[in-house]
Amino acid sequence: MRIAIDAMGGDHAPGLIVAGALEAAREWPDTELLLVGDPAAIEPLLGEGKPANVKVVEAAEVIRPEDEPVRAVRRKKGASMVVAGRLVKEKEADAMLSAGNTGALMATGLLVVGRLEGIERPALAPMMPTMDDIGVLALDLGANMDAKPEHLLQYAIMGSLYRAKVHGMDQPRVGLLNVGTEAKKGNETMKAAYDLLSEAPIHFIGNVESRDVLNRNCDVLICDGFAGNIMLKAMEGAAGTIFTALKDAFGQSIMTKLAAAIMLPRLKALKKKMDYKEHGGAPLLGLNGLVVKCHGSSDIVAVKNAVRQARIAIQNKLVESIAAEINGK
Amino acid sequence: MRIAIDAMGGDHAPGLIVAGALEAAREWPDTELLLVGDPAAIEPLLGEGKPANVKVVEAAEVIRPEDEPVRAVRRKKGASMVVAGRLVKEKEADAMLSAGNTGALMATGLLVVGRLEGIERPALAPMMPTMDDIGVLALDLGANMDAKPEHLLQYAIMGSLYRAKVHGMDQPRVGLLNVGTEAKKGNETMKAAYDLLSEAPIHFIGNVESRDVLNRNCDVLICDGFAGNIMLKAMEGAAGTIFTALKDAFGQSIMTKLAAAIMLPRLKALKKKMDYKEHGGAPLLGLNGLVVKCHGSSDIVAVKNAVRQARIAIQNKLVESIAAEINGK
Repeated sequence: MRIAIDAMGGDHAPGLIVAGALEAAREWPDTELLLVGDPAAIEPLLGEGKPANVKVVEAAEVIRPEDEPVRAVRRKKGASMVVAGRLVKEKEADAMLSAGNTGALMATGLLVVGRLEGIERPALAPMMPTMDDIGVLALDLGANMDAKPEHLLQYAIMGSLYRAKVHGMDQPRVGLLNVGTEAKKGNETMKAAYDLLSEAPIHFIGNVESRDVLNRNCDVLICDGFAGNIMLKAMEGAAGTIFTALKDAFGQSIMTKLAAAIMLPRLKALKKKMDYKEHGGAPLLGLNGLVVKCHGSSDIVAVKNAVRQARIAIQNKLVESIAAEINGK
Repeated sequence: MRIAIDAMGGDHAPGLIVAGALEAAREWPDTELLLVGDPAAIEPLLGEGKPANVKVVEAAEVIRPEDEPVRAVRRKKGASMVVAGRLVKEKEADAMLSAGNTGALMATGLLVVGRLEGIERPALAPMMPTMDDIGVLALDLGANMDAKPEHLLQYAIMGSLYRAKVHGMDQPRVGLLNVGTEAKKGNETMKAAYDLLSEAPIHFIGNVESRDVLNRNCDVLICDGFAGNIMLKAMEGAAGTIFTALKDAFGQSIMTKLAAAIMLPRLKALKKKMDYKEHGGAPLLGLNGLVVKCHGSSDIVAVKNAVRQARIAIQNKLVESIAAEINGK
């Protein structure tokens, strides 16, 4: 199998992206990794003894974090992200990864890779952290601001297949983010989505509440992007505020500083557990090929993990399964 | 002025409700307090030396927490809450307070007290806690599930007047809960609401994010009830999860138990600061009279504070100001 990697996207590109790709290439010799970007920047990083399964694909331009996504994808046809997308589109690669501009990657997915037939809205599906470290796959957290019930139905099917095929879950529990757990709750969109999800070929457990997400009240969380984004930021804000207040409280006297010294490793572990950014690559589902968004701050381990994730998805025919399920309906 | 108090609603009714009313009556002899409920239950609680400004108004029935709100209000015409609402409707009282069933109180507001002319949706406006202890007035956090831009405009005007008239704020900052602070963010409803709020006679500071609410990024937070409810529960859930995890971490060894002993008062203070329930009565705005929802667990202090709040609102002609502003448009 072949995986294209946008070597120029992300805070630590190309250095740690290339280094992560080299580690992945050594671990999985059956997988060809196409490093897309400026050869003059990439080749010196490959060093001696470059694995035979690493290739460089030239791309002259780069999409910057501050670029307006759709325009950048349309105009910079030679950008590393766009070239990687084209490799997927033309079946030269089975998947692509990028730690670059999220909006531009979504535009690359839509405009370059293309939607699967029957899919109305592709969805970015990041993992939200949970206290048991397993996480919840959320679709979506801010891409689709005016989600229709039919979009939410497709998110549920795609997310459920991803959890099954890539995370090996037997019967992933799909929950609908709502204001109460009873049926008939929420706005008109959610009431209609509830009915659609109840009839879908998934393990739908009904409405779930934002207060229980950290305790993994479901495995796949279906939300409209507007409310999902507000939920995510509310959780981040509450956690950040509490940790700041704790820091202040621990600094108040010699005794509290002693308490801080004792508690520090545990507090750090808790903070890390709740960090949204720690949780790997997010697939962009519903495209005619696999696209994985890596966090902007991705390092060697993150790139390697994203390659691992893409390999599993390819081996288990994730995209084909989504196509079959959506079009079999 | 006269304030009707539903003596039978709330977890501690009638005991602490009546006790709170007695304290308020002694503090403000110019205010007549009408205790609405079963005289056989209320009168023994009044004791000797009942203040002259306390009266009992008979009501034979009670609306229970588990009652279906609209049906209960329609059928139990003799319920203490409904009778108190009727006193406001008939101008026998300037305001009413209840710690009973929230949905039933909203139904009492709509069906018994009645909407102000020109108001499309009355809104319950609770205070959300902030780290500086001042709080944010939020409209609304779960009553109106399919808010229209015009509803949000009216919420902004009513909330702004409440902060000015009752909390004495000079230029309350009104923020629109959204997924980013820039203009043109969010779903179609929020984009339209942004334009309406920009032209309203308020100090509109634009879009605000859920992550900053605890740091009081505005004084009046305008949200659609669906997203607002999800935000509130996400914050509660994150805080609850962190405090539980801290408790576990503090219990792990003798040393961490020592740290816990040092930190306990500070942690308790922090937890209390973030407790949504600690923050007083919530006005139901947009009605033809003042209705204040007290928390179900209201005690003597809470009832007295709610009377104080109602007095200020009456003295400063809150309802008349809202009517003038809405109908002057």
